[in-house]
Amino acid sequence: MDPKVREHAEVLVDWSARIEAGDDVVVSVAEGAHELAVAVAEKLGERGANVVTTYASDEVSRAYLRAHDRAFETGEHELALYENADSVLFLGGGRNTFATADVPGETRQAAARAAEPVREARMDTDWVSTVHPTRSLAQQAGMSYEAYREFVYDAVLRDWAELAEEMARMKEILDEGSEVRLVKGEDTDLRMSIEGRRAVNSAASVAYDSHNLPSGEVFTAPYDPEGAVCFDVPMTLSGTRVRDVRLTFEGGEVVDFSAASGEDALSDVLDTDEGARRLGELGIGMNRGIDRFTDSVLFDEKMGDTVHLAVGRAYDACLPEGEAGNDSAVHVDMITDVSEDSRIEVDGDVVQRNGVFPWEDGFEG
Amino acid sequence: MDPKVREHAEVLVDWSARIEAGDDVVVSVAEGAHELAVAVAEKLGERGANVVTTYASDEVSRAYLRAHDRAFETGEHELALYENADSVLFLGGGRNTFATADVPGETRQAAARAAEPVREARMDTDWVSTVHPTRSLAQQAGMSYEAYREFVYDAVLRDWAELAEEMARMKEILDEGSEVRLVKGEDTDLRMSIEGRRAVNSAASVAYDSHNLPSGEVFTAPYDPEGAVCFDVPMTLSGTRVRDVRLTFEGGEVVDFSAASGEDALSDVLDTDEGARRLGELGIGMNRGIDRFTDSVLFDEKMGDTVHLAVGRAYDACLPEGEAGNDSAVHVDMITDVSEDSRIEVDGDVVQRNGVFPWEDGFEG
Repeated sequence: MDPKVREHAEVLVDWSARIEAGDDVVVSVAEGAHELAVAVAEKLGERGANVVTTYASDEVSRAYLRAHDRAFETGEHELALYENADSVLFLGGGRNTFATADVPGETRQAAARAAEPVREARMDTDWVSTVHPTRSLAQQAGMSYEAYREFVYDAVLRDWAELAEEMARMKEILDEGSEVRLVKGEDTDLRMSIEGRRAVNSAASVAYDSHNLPSGEVFTAPYDPEGAVCFDVPMTLSGTRVRDVRLTFEGGEVVDFSAASGEDALSDVLDTDEGARRLGELGIGMNRGIDRFTDSVLFDEKMGDTVHLAVGRAYDACLPEGEAGNDSAVHVDMITDVSEDSRIEVDGDVVQRNGVFPWEDGFEG
Repeated sequence: MDPKVREHAEVLVDWSARIEAGDDVVVSVAEGAHELAVAVAEKLGERGANVVTTYASDEVSRAYLRAHDRAFETGEHELALYENADSVLFLGGGRNTFATADVPGETRQAAARAAEPVREARMDTDWVSTVHPTRSLAQQAGMSYEAYREFVYDAVLRDWAELAEEMARMKEILDEGSEVRLVKGEDTDLRMSIEGRRAVNSAASVAYDSHNLPSGEVFTAPYDPEGAVCFDVPMTLSGTRVRDVRLTFEGGEVVDFSAASGEDALSDVLDTDEGARRLGELGIGMNRGIDRFTDSVLFDEKMGDTVHLAVGRAYDACLPEGEAGNDSAVHVDMITDVSEDSRIEVDGDVVQRNGVFPWEDGFEG
């Protein structure tokens, strides 16, 4: 086994999930994640955790979903499993990113509704989501398998404690600030309020309210956006490639939108419900181990020199007691490259220019 | 997908496990059983069952067990999963039958003790165990992959309702009988009591107290054996090949034993506890779809023209209210070929001679 697989497992179990002896842990293994599952099991054995391993096969899901009459129920056994779990480790990494492409949307939605109590029980645990590099994901990224593996481990095997310290600076700025302004070139100038909201130092650990490995972003839940914003990083929405999204906000809501391609998929998202036209997240990517876009939001949104906004649901972690965040059935991240001709201001102070932060060499205020 | 995989899934879900809409089902998938898992998921979707899929990977287990300090605990989440399940479908079929060969025996035993409540919860469900044909199992059987697949489907895809009817005749004979005598050649002449015991018509369905697919045997829980018996079908005990076991019983217990090879492994079994020297099972193989020995007890003991005895634990299903069966930590089946020079008598009547039953052509009473 590549030693990096073991290092990945160690970061996941110790830094991210903080597993201790006696913890009841569910490990969810995607079809292509066997090798990481073996390394994680070894680490969980060392820590003395109690483990149930589930098989998160897209092909199994597809067969089940397509055969079902859509009168889905919540499985009491599944609910009991997660209600009694301390942690859930999701080991992604499938063999075909389109494995469930022919499951009808109505079926997915019906299944998701029935699974809502299970989802909530999972989210109440110390869950962490990561991926094992597979050939399928390499293909999605447009990379060779070998190069993709290096890419993943560069992103995952960081000095997380050091990055957490750096990100704490940005969290402090956002926690204390009232208004963020994002400016880029001629097309993007967006102001949004963050007054009363709490930023998350997403350092890839449940100890930081952070549930993705890799992570490396600071995010908060903005509201009342005014202005326009362009997202130049392509994304995939329900299998449709979407490029160059432009959103115009007035009165806190999207009043105009366009996309160079995939505009229908974008329109579907924005029409989901009322909250889908409002903002749910502002995130600032700070993981410099990620050096390219790979058509995977888990990585893309964490990349240094990027900023992302999500329409839809806000995360509870950004909402102090008494603050109600935006609610929606969707949460769709859109990313913009801020390495050039860009700045972020908080209450009028520049806190990032062309990707460079105030505490970094070369910063121009 | 080979249509036989779908047929296998259908027999498992409908005939064996009797799954109905709303049932909470756990599907346990071995490393090599993905294809069968997909077919089973499709069938469970059609039936409207609620499914949790677990990953029964030997390599994951090995890594976990070897890393653990042996202070195992029962996972509350795992217990909750099975206590809330209606059915558990075990889809065997690994990639290496020796994948856990280097897990120390003490570790296995400690883990098994901690898992005892989980095992009991699983056994309280309508569980069924089957295997998907893998290259590893073909290798164990000494067969090509293609030939092994045919072998498995010949054994599994029976007319089970018809076989259940035939086996009901043997069950009736055993239920009404008091003493069984097994005679073969010069070396085997064993008498044992079955008075007060109930035979199981093991027709590969929970509706018949039968939990293996394939099955095709009638078994009961004999006691007070007297005489000698030789088992000419080789078996594997904890990785050791054991051949030509000979047991001599006096006063209901093994008083002498030998084996042409693997005698130490046999000795270990018999020394486990007091019950390990008494009988737990007498089974009569009646599945004529199984035409060769493949070093897998799931198949070998069901083969037509064979009889097996087990030392150790008796099955509860053979014990009417008030009957206490033999108790032991082990249950080890040993098989003898009765196609020639053999007969089974019940209370003095020949009920099988040279593999032929009274209701078959060519029977000689």
